[in-house]
Amino acid sequence: MPTPQTSPAPLSPERPGGEFALIDWIRRQAGPHPRLEVGIGDDAASVSWPDTDSTLIAVDMLVEGVHFTCPEATPEQVGRKSLAVNLSDIAAMAGRPIAAVVSVALPPSWHGEPAQRLHSGLAALARETGVALAGGDTTSTDGPLVISVTVIGESPSGGPVLRSGAQPGDRILVTGRLGGSLDGHHLDFTPRIAEAVSLLESGGLHAMIDISDGLATDLHHLLQASGVGARLSATDVPLNHLTERTRDGRTRLAHAIADGEDFELLATVTPDIAARLIADPPFETPLTDIGQITQDSGLDMLMPDGRVVPLPPLGFEHEVG
Amino acid sequence: MPTPQTSPAPLSPERPGGEFALIDWIRRQAGPHPRLEVGIGDDAASVSWPDTDSTLIAVDMLVEGVHFTCPEATPEQVGRKSLAVNLSDIAAMAGRPIAAVVSVALPPSWHGEPAQRLHSGLAALARETGVALAGGDTTSTDGPLVISVTVIGESPSGGPVLRSGAQPGDRILVTGRLGGSLDGHHLDFTPRIAEAVSLLESGGLHAMIDISDGLATDLHHLLQASGVGARLSATDVPLNHLTERTRDGRTRLAHAIADGEDFELLATVTPDIAARLIADPPFETPLTDIGQITQDSGLDMLMPDGRVVPLPPLGFEHEVG
Repeated sequence: MPTPQTSPAPLSPERPGGEFALIDWIRRQAGPHPRLEVGIGDDAASVSWPDTDSTLIAVDMLVEGVHFTCPEATPEQVGRKSLAVNLSDIAAMAGRPIAAVVSVALPPSWHGEPAQRLHSGLAALARETGVALAGGDTTSTDGPLVISVTVIGESPSGGPVLRSGAQPGDRILVTGRLGGSLDGHHLDFTPRIAEAVSLLESGGLHAMIDISDGLATDLHHLLQASGVGARLSATDVPLNHLTERTRDGRTRLAHAIADGEDFELLATVTPDIAARLIADPPFETPLTDIGQITQDSGLDMLMPDGRVVPLPPLGFEHEVG
Repeated sequence: MPTPQTSPAPLSPERPGGEFALIDWIRRQAGPHPRLEVGIGDDAASVSWPDTDSTLIAVDMLVEGVHFTCPEATPEQVGRKSLAVNLSDIAAMAGRPIAAVVSVALPPSWHGEPAQRLHSGLAALARETGVALAGGDTTSTDGPLVISVTVIGESPSGGPVLRSGAQPGDRILVTGRLGGSLDGHHLDFTPRIAEAVSLLESGGLHAMIDISDGLATDLHHLLQASGVGARLSATDVPLNHLTERTRDGRTRLAHAIADGEDFELLATVTPDIAARLIADPPFETPLTDIGQITQDSGLDMLMPDGRVVPLPPLGFEHEVG
């Protein structure tokens, strides 16, 4: 695997020093990791797996021009984000990320230094989070840069926290502040790995999802999986101060509800434990109670003026904008 | 993870029914699997991992126009190949593939039926090999189709078989016949999963690699990792009958040595066990003794006329062509 796939000659002309040189550079950068038994340099990587009986897997693919644009995003930020979105997925299961593999299709303009910077950003986050970079595949493309990262992680004892466990009466908690992704937060967010573990250890965590498609959309996913409904309180949604109505005429609340890629955790927790968590948060990241799970299906929101408006998964800007 | 990443609105305009519809279709196709605890439909997949203390990971990315071209390759063949190359990597470690995740960037021309056919080809091979399709990510691209597959597998007891274990005196065995990739074999090869396990169970297996970059190049990888050399016997290299000199003026032997993507196993085995394996093969796939590991570094080949020619990793056509 760490050796790039070379196609039959007519399809893939040799580019001496290109792909193999990058792989060698990545191999030199990769330090040892206590869980990595076989790293870059064989057909597959081998990661020790002594403690749990389950393996979590998350995969996400980023495409230049779709998920990021350059030069708004630096190569380091692109590399970092490609790993971070997967760490956020593992966190949403209350899991512990252990190892990652990376595949990247590089257009000519990304060869050399940009590719190394891409990898540096990814490797820095891997070091910060203790994740082993176990292997990868590098190839060429005439199209936009495409990077796909797969992370494997350990399931918490008792099994992963799913979207489907929400129960009527649960409080809906959210980490961080919402609505800042368009201001660049989607490039520098911190995956809430430790926060997820703390929420699990509270003993009252029923369901969890990370906010990648937007608060309203992802809450709909959770509600649908759990067969319940919810009512949010508009005044309680934690807003990112960087998002102003002046940007495109939408309110800060509309951004917080509609915009994707906040990558915060959305959790449902028993009311008593939720009250304790809010009163005495187990971590420094903001934690806010934004509403309640209801028996009735559907999602609506109590507005500051006392109105209750429905929140469909998409296209709600005119209701709350 | 199974929910496609939606970017902030300005980067990724909504395409109703596009990506979500494909994910739904894939979810409906995915049957249950005894090892799959959480499949498509949550943030990450969960796979039971009861028996081994290690997890193997392989990843490979295919790019349209680089690793395949259409319509020479059908969508089903592209999907099949994207999984098969990874199964071949797991086989090269003598591992057992358990689960796969798939990420794909679809250009507009691949939306709809072609994407479903792509997935069908992939899913058919997953069924044949008992691999759980655990999740995926689908996105759009204006460039060529890019598909990345990650396979996790179980390590054999005693640890995976590496490239680095070859010892002087070992016989060099190869499965199947070589040199047919340009005739389309790279699209329909069978990953040698069971053969690898049989070779391991023989008790004499020291090192193994799958032939993805070509016999000479991959043997060089193995020799370098093991710190040894080798001599091949030209008359013993098993040739694919479909490869004729008439195609591009090169001999069948040159194709067999130089062309990538045969995806056969190249193994080094103790002489006594190798003799037993050749005399009484444990599987129907051809198994051929093509040479010997030597103490001296370097790779050369005994030609039919008695000459001994060096085999560099690349650019040997003029020596043996």
